Amino acid sequence: MPTGRARLTVDDLPVRPELRGKSPYGAPQLDVPVRLNTNENPYPLPEELVGRIAERVTEAARGLNRYPDRDALELRAALARYLTATTGHPVATESVWAANGSNEVLQQLLQAFGGPGRTALGFEPSYSMHGLIARGTGTSWVAAGRGADFELDAGTARRAIAEHRPDVVFVCTPNNPTGTAVPAETVLAVHDAAQQVRPTLVVVDEAYVEFSHGTSLLPLIEGRPNLVVSRTMSKAFGAAGLRLGYLAAHPAVVEAVQLVRLPYHLSAVTQATALAALEHTDTLLRYVDRLRAERDRLVVELRAAGCEVTDSDANFVQFGNFDGPGGAAEVWRLLLDHGVLVRDNGVPGRLRVTAGTPEENDAFLDAVRAVMKEYDR
Amino acid sequence: MPTGRARLTVDDLPVRPELRGKSPYGAPQLDVPVRLNTNENPYPLPEELVGRIAERVTEAARGLNRYPDRDALELRAALARYLTATTGHPVATESVWAANGSNEVLQQLLQAFGGPGRTALGFEPSYSMHGLIARGTGTSWVAAGRGADFELDAGTARRAIAEHRPDVVFVCTPNNPTGTAVPAETVLAVHDAAQQVRPTLVVVDEAYVEFSHGTSLLPLIEGRPNLVVSRTMSKAFGAAGLRLGYLAAHPAVVEAVQLVRLPYHLSAVTQATALAALEHTDTLLRYVDRLRAERDRLVVELRAAGCEVTDSDANFVQFGNFDGPGGAAEVWRLLLDHGVLVRDNGVPGRLRVTAGTPEENDAFLDAVRAVMKEYDR
Repeated sequence: MPTGRARLTVDDLPVRPELRGKSPYGAPQLDVPVRLNTNENPYPLPEELVGRIAERVTEAARGLNRYPDRDALELRAALARYLTATTGHPVATESVWAANGSNEVLQQLLQAFGGPGRTALGFEPSYSMHGLIARGTGTSWVAAGRGADFELDAGTARRAIAEHRPDVVFVCTPNNPTGTAVPAETVLAVHDAAQQVRPTLVVVDEAYVEFSHGTSLLPLIEGRPNLVVSRTMSKAFGAAGLRLGYLAAHPAVVEAVQLVRLPYHLSAVTQATALAALEHTDTLLRYVDRLRAERDRLVVELRAAGCEVTDSDANFVQFGNFDGPGGAAEVWRLLLDHGVLVRDNGVPGRLRVTAGTPEENDAFLDAVRAVMKEYDR
Repeated sequence: MPTGRARLTVDDLPVRPELRGKSPYGAPQLDVPVRLNTNENPYPLPEELVGRIAERVTEAARGLNRYPDRDALELRAALARYLTATTGHPVATESVWAANGSNEVLQQLLQAFGGPGRTALGFEPSYSMHGLIARGTGTSWVAAGRGADFELDAGTARRAIAEHRPDVVFVCTPNNPTGTAVPAETVLAVHDAAQQVRPTLVVVDEAYVEFSHGTSLLPLIEGRPNLVVSRTMSKAFGAAGLRLGYLAAHPAVVEAVQLVRLPYHLSAVTQATALAALEHTDTLLRYVDRLRAERDRLVVELRAAGCEVTDSDANFVQFGNFDGPGGAAEVWRLLLDHGVLVRDNGVPGRLRVTAGTPEENDAFLDAVRAVMKEYDR
């Protein structure tokens, strides 16, 4: 081991061998005028809600010397009411679970239903944290593919499931980073194919569902105890800083994650802030319509500028196809030179842009038009 | 699989086999007049601090549509200043990491340094989450023992390490639930014995160190990159509801946990609240002296009442020895009948009581004196 402090790195410590030489996950955080790289909602919370958060947190702070409600019952009841109101499907408190971001929800699901000796399967390109969280919980990860235009093809999915016999299957809809929603019949085909091999947890990641043209697949949990829908307040609710993810499923699934969750995982201030935000659901969801309209405008204008664009049901758009020698990475750099930060998710020839404010999107589209002239195909 | 919804339980789902028939971890949450069972600080935060939390959270809420600082740099700098000021040992921001409770800190350490195929070892009775989090991360768990009066004996520890060849070793000091601090020379003996077998992470859990008669072992991290000190704001800071745990170690250890942490794991409101609390360190730590004095009173009065009491450096006291036919569980129930909730940690013949306010402690001591007459030895 080296002696000087400055020389010592992770690789000198007794970390797990698979971590050696790795870098932390996360988009580059660069200080540029237009940041459209992490699918954040560009609209700050209204001041009325900021005030209500301060009230709720003040109340929580007066009891901060005590542990928070370990089961977050008031919050889960409010989330259940939100799901019932927006999907038309009655959801009970005991069918809902909440954690620090949907990442922690997915981690808890994988600890209970995946883990060492078990396998999780996803259809890539998709949300890359599915595979990373699987590996982080000791679950083997199988990356199955998608069809033309990045759509999830039921036949391909069935074959992948039969071949790999997963214990957990992820379906992201609308899919990140490609943008398109998966039809209910495809999700059902995946679910049924998986159950035929063995009882298998099917996780439907609906992080972006509020921006979709269609409806939530949440009603599918009825009568299907191995089907889970995961959600987040980061996107439609405009509360990425809150880190509040949740799931809806059969109450037995909630009991299962309670066996692996860290006790008191959700702080009293997080619970108070989320409750305040849920009181203002109607106000918050008003921005969703605006963002959908901007998303549709991005699709039209990007196509007019000569880009290939994947159909989007989310608050972001995948565009390309940049198959010149510099690939998508070159376009990413050129856009950055124009002050616009988008995301290179590693999908060959494609980039992902988040729908921002009209002004941000104008700046992005101007930059794209300029870059399309500079880019060497 | 049963058809009726009401009949379906966790055991009907494809959960990991080791979870079947298990119950979630956590002390019973009962509504009784005197709750001295979870080592909470009985003193609410001062109103001045509550106001500062509201200000800081209001500011954070205005930017809540954006993800929080993934690396929590401002918070880690404030924690580093606190550690430097209270231990006299200079601690840099890059030597500090924070997460949702020390449980999440420990989970991240085990994901990076433990995991499938690796072994963690602790000296029981100790904080039972060490073993639970180890198992939850797929790490094998070895429970080594302690000596007379629950002290950690260097010789016994060396033999356990030589026999089990662990990858991670936990030393809890002051030890929970027994209460006694471990001398620095014993921790060093454990550390050195472990390194002789193979490079091994040694985690010194100092959750209760602010209540100790001695000093923090934090300076031991100097020149020992495999030694980590974990801390929490739940106890001395009186902020159990905040869920803020942290560690101090060589910066390479912090880089290692950044490889396994969920991105954006710590919400903007949690970071803001913790920063506000750290501005009021002096006010908060005033209560520590009061709680130490009450802890010492509990020790004296419990001994006077005929109990065996383990020396305590924490904000709780282990007492017994209840070796009658009903064991400690019977005394736990009898105290509950008197309106006092203490903790049965499963240590044969012993119970644990948290130092509360003087009034709470009086009520507890009255109940103990009454129960000692009723209890059948």
